[in-house]
Amino acid sequence: MRTTVGIIGAGPAGLLLARLLHRAGIASFVLESRDRAYVEQRQRAGILEQGTADVLRAAGAGERMDREGLRHDGIELRFDGRRHRVDFPGLTGGRAVTVYAQTEVCKDLVALQLEEGGPLLFEAEALAVEGAETGTPRVRFRHEGREDVLECDYVAGCDGFWGVARKAVPAALSRVFERTYPFGWLGILADVAPSHDELVYARHDRGFALLSMRSPTVSRLYLQVPTETDAADWSDEAIWDELERRLATEDDWRLERGPVTQKSVTPMRSFVHEPMRHGRLFLAGDAAHIVPPTGAKGLNLAVGDVVTLARALVHRRDTGSEELLDSYSETCLRRVWQAERFSYDMTTLLHPAPGATPFEDRLQVARLDRIATSRAARTDLAEAYTGFPLD
Amino acid sequence: MRTTVGIIGAGPAGLLLARLLHRAGIASFVLESRDRAYVEQRQRAGILEQGTADVLRAAGAGERMDREGLRHDGIELRFDGRRHRVDFPGLTGGRAVTVYAQTEVCKDLVALQLEEGGPLLFEAEALAVEGAETGTPRVRFRHEGREDVLECDYVAGCDGFWGVARKAVPAALSRVFERTYPFGWLGILADVAPSHDELVYARHDRGFALLSMRSPTVSRLYLQVPTETDAADWSDEAIWDELERRLATEDDWRLERGPVTQKSVTPMRSFVHEPMRHGRLFLAGDAAHIVPPTGAKGLNLAVGDVVTLARALVHRRDTGSEELLDSYSETCLRRVWQAERFSYDMTTLLHPAPGATPFEDRLQVARLDRIATSRAARTDLAEAYTGFPLD
Repeated sequence: MRTTVGIIGAGPAGLLLARLLHRAGIASFVLESRDRAYVEQRQRAGILEQGTADVLRAAGAGERMDREGLRHDGIELRFDGRRHRVDFPGLTGGRAVTVYAQTEVCKDLVALQLEEGGPLLFEAEALAVEGAETGTPRVRFRHEGREDVLECDYVAGCDGFWGVARKAVPAALSRVFERTYPFGWLGILADVAPSHDELVYARHDRGFALLSMRSPTVSRLYLQVPTETDAADWSDEAIWDELERRLATEDDWRLERGPVTQKSVTPMRSFVHEPMRHGRLFLAGDAAHIVPPTGAKGLNLAVGDVVTLARALVHRRDTGSEELLDSYSETCLRRVWQAERFSYDMTTLLHPAPGATPFEDRLQVARLDRIATSRAARTDLAEAYTGFPLD
Repeated sequence: MRTTVGIIGAGPAGLLLARLLHRAGIASFVLESRDRAYVEQRQRAGILEQGTADVLRAAGAGERMDREGLRHDGIELRFDGRRHRVDFPGLTGGRAVTVYAQTEVCKDLVALQLEEGGPLLFEAEALAVEGAETGTPRVRFRHEGREDVLECDYVAGCDGFWGVARKAVPAALSRVFERTYPFGWLGILADVAPSHDELVYARHDRGFALLSMRSPTVSRLYLQVPTETDAADWSDEAIWDELERRLATEDDWRLERGPVTQKSVTPMRSFVHEPMRHGRLFLAGDAAHIVPPTGAKGLNLAVGDVVTLARALVHRRDTGSEELLDSYSETCLRRVWQAERFSYDMTTLLHPAPGATPFEDRLQVARLDRIATSRAARTDLAEAYTGFPLD
């Protein structure tokens, strides 16, 4: 088997890369270890930056997003019972975000790929990337019990944090940057209309809470919990009670409850692997970097990576120049580190760490006060939230 | 002995308070434990916020400052050998800072006080504040070997971090917020023209360095050093060599050397005592709060406190209302916590902590990159650096 670009992983990074290459007339082949149902159901983030939504539209994958996605012009910060809105378009010259779940993005891209794109093989488990330093890299994989090899001109490792692609970069050439947090998120999906029409980020002495949504009838809510928390230890009622406490306001705002349809704990991690390129292997998305979910940058970073990669591959084909491929890692990492910074800042702004000193508690509130009272500080946040430029 | 406002400490807080009260026709009496020469020589910060300079002018204490002080319209941030200017007036609608050493401010205020103000007693060591909860608080003090008592309507504790005033607030009513840093500043004064006409804040893998100045012919320079450093262990040459390394740029900028006239190590600490008022005792300046020197907020916070206090005392005399005295602590603490936040952020932005992880190093550079590339982030910094509103 042979293709121009072998893509490992049919998450948003791999699927969008295949789409962008297809539209540019470059052949690719996508290998995905899971089955289609799994890919179309895994719950992840749901906030698309302005630039991400624009890219999906330009790739012909924005139709349902534009119909069903919710444009959000701001978020609300809550602390000490007070509510402060951050107005995105007013602060950034018109930028906004779109609430449209990653699962929906994947469904749209899978459908397009199967309809008009190149090959996409489910239940095809990549085992290793070989020959990345050569002109003919290969992906060894297993499908229906048999091992096979995909020969490529380039390999895109879009196979997530636990994938095999990153392992093909020799340890001696790699640097890993990492931070874990002493808390995680207990998240629920609930069949109830969101109690607020924009996301609410709440800092409370008892911990962070986030009110989010998947659609006008489905709420997505999160609670900061200790790292080792088992979601099964939390009854639905206990979750709602705690959300109510942390989201409480001075005014008459109320949290509406509804049936909980899903419940899970997400760990929080910051991770960057440098470089993002080794020879003809290019890492994209979670394969190269992880952000904590505060700020919802994960999916958007993946999109940024593959836009950069697709552009570089087209440039190579059209001009013969390796220039953009050579600068791929550096270009992506500049954006990645800004997103890492922002995600870290949003996380430490809103989550009281276990064992935080009274000084640190006051510092968090002073930071939130600053954002509430300074247009410059709010603009800094709004620019980062709606997205760093995709270039 | 009896006065309206007993002021403990003839640092900038106590001296300026006496000046403001004198101009408003309110009697005060200043007790200072040290002699005049000491007060006029102790080296401290040297950056006056826009609002601080305005207050000194309005108090008739700005004449020499306006003649000899240096107006600075920005600072330079240095990292990875690159130089980035933060343009204060352009970002804040015209605000700037004035470089004029705290010792000079003190000299000016001492001269004015002795010439036309109320009593200022040197070598008068306050021993305790008594009766703060009563209508007749007292300061016990020792002067020329004898104990005496100053009876007051109000007491202003302007006696610094190590002073006695704060001890008069019962522990049960106090909350202390504190952070120490695992590094200090080795500072020198040198008889050489500053090698740059604005302050240079440099982040280097070897540690922070600051190029500052006292006048067009006197440089003030600092190096981040481990907490336990003895200044005597550093030869002048070693200091200049290290400054040169940390301040190095990609271009042909050069650090000029000159005779070192003073050398000392400053510890770094964040500290806030809440509340800043107990009955008729009001804490101001370092007696209530300490900031690390990065960002030069200490003197400016002291000025903010005494402006607020003088206004409240005048309001009490003119209207009989205790309202502003009652809100003194809250009003000051709002500004104090913003300055604590800013000083902490500037410190952690620029000082690689001992044992910092590679992730934290990258985060510092990403933050500096953000400031270098985002007008909003630069504006946030410039607003805070030039000063929070004095009200």
